[in-house]
Amino acid sequence: MSTTGSYQVSGMTCGHCVTSVKEEVGEIPGVRDVDVELSSGRVTVTSEEPIDPGVVHQAVADAGYEIVNG
Amino acid sequence: MSTTGSYQVSGMTCGHCVTSVKEEVGEIPGVRDVDVELSSGRVTVTSEEPIDPGVVHQAVADAGYEIVNG
Repeated sequence: MSTTGSYQVSGMTCGHCVTSVKEEVGEIPGVRDVDVELSSGRVTVTSEEPIDPGVVHQAVADAGYEIVNG
Repeated sequence: MSTTGSYQVSGMTCGHCVTSVKEEVGEIPGVRDVDVELSSGRVTVTSEEPIDPGVVHQAVADAGYEIVNG
């Protein structure tokens, strides 16, 4: 079983930004996969158990970006 | 004594891009300093002896960007 959370992230401008977000969010305990679409800013987090959105917000902030929705 | 070369680079969109270009150009033998201005795309290369522009073009290409002038 897995659960997904979807977030809208602003400020990602290139593949390096995508990598930064993927790495930081991917380090959250329980996260199995992180999918980032640069063009839309959509970040999809797959995990075995639901992840606290506040933890995802913090990880995105740590990478240098901001969740604007989700 | 030092010499500087100035190049116009397209495609850099964020600080990660700046870092990539700085690292790649900074690895060219003889280069002492690389200054990159993200907003303008201006890259200034300082070296003890003049650097072959073709080598700078290749380094920028290796980083994933393109020199459009210089």
